[in-house]
Amino acid sequence: MVVLGIDPGYAIVGYGAIEQTRGRTRALGYGAITTKAGVPLPDRLSEIYRDMLELLSRVRPDAAAVEELFFNTNVTTGIAVAHARGVIVLACAQSGVPVFQYTPLQVKMAVVGYGRAEKKQVMEMTRIMLGLDKMPRPDDAADALAVALCHAHTAQSLVGGGRK
Amino acid sequence: MVVLGIDPGYAIVGYGAIEQTRGRTRALGYGAITTKAGVPLPDRLSEIYRDMLELLSRVRPDAAAVEELFFNTNVTTGIAVAHARGVIVLACAQSGVPVFQYTPLQVKMAVVGYGRAEKKQVMEMTRIMLGLDKMPRPDDAADALAVALCHAHTAQSLVGGGRK
Repeated sequence: MVVLGIDPGYAIVGYGAIEQTRGRTRALGYGAITTKAGVPLPDRLSEIYRDMLELLSRVRPDAAAVEELFFNTNVTTGIAVAHARGVIVLACAQSGVPVFQYTPLQVKMAVVGYGRAEKKQVMEMTRIMLGLDKMPRPDDAADALAVALCHAHTAQSLVGGGRK
Repeated sequence: MVVLGIDPGYAIVGYGAIEQTRGRTRALGYGAITTKAGVPLPDRLSEIYRDMLELLSRVRPDAAAVEELFFNTNVTTGIAVAHARGVIVLACAQSGVPVFQYTPLQVKMAVVGYGRAEKKQVMEMTRIMLGLDKMPRPDDAADALAVALCHAHTAQSLVGGGRK
């Protein structure tokens, strides 16, 4: 099973693809789609949409795991990110890839086993679980890999496989 | 000049097309794109995207005027609406239609000339300005026509035409 994790954003969309075979999980690739400040909204959304379609056709994931949004800080930024997230989910739907959504709490629980884990702990556990030498960069890509792991574990437990 | 006004929503996207020729403004058509509660997010966004593309290819507007969002009430609903708005703006961009954005305050100022006008006043002035016998339904379509009028007036004043 190939899972594409996505950390939605407006300036930076983190992504990370993992493959799970017989209980072994490895990273297939990760990175970020970026758009430039100062470029008008319609153009930035078009860029995200085009790059997402290209990424989905390259990775051909069985599922996309997209982090849910929480507006605890800046509402204006939040609106822009939600615009981008709508376009990201649309790109998955148009590519025939099922979309699963996870809250930051679910990601922390799945990766660290502790809902109040700090961001650094989540990133470090993600690195260890995927057997990577270095922490993936940018942070958004590491976050995306964590969401992908969250889905892989949740999906596995749904089919009666293993750890919760 | 043909302007397509859009009142973004998740369950209901209001739209209204107006044509302005030599200072005369008339409504070409209006209505709403609706999606059903209970249908998953990716499917609802796909419906909105598909219906928007179809609408844009039918109306062939010179500009789209899309109301901006304010999150003064329910943030969860606001996130869903922002997802839909991202898809709406994307559909305009993919159709080569320039997008203009107006705040509710700008719409009120353009249509009623008073920033604290009530919703009913905006709708009634919209009806009168377009010479319609009845108030357009649903409300979302009337709101969309008001946004279209706002753009028509703003654009007109930009080229030195007439009323502010």
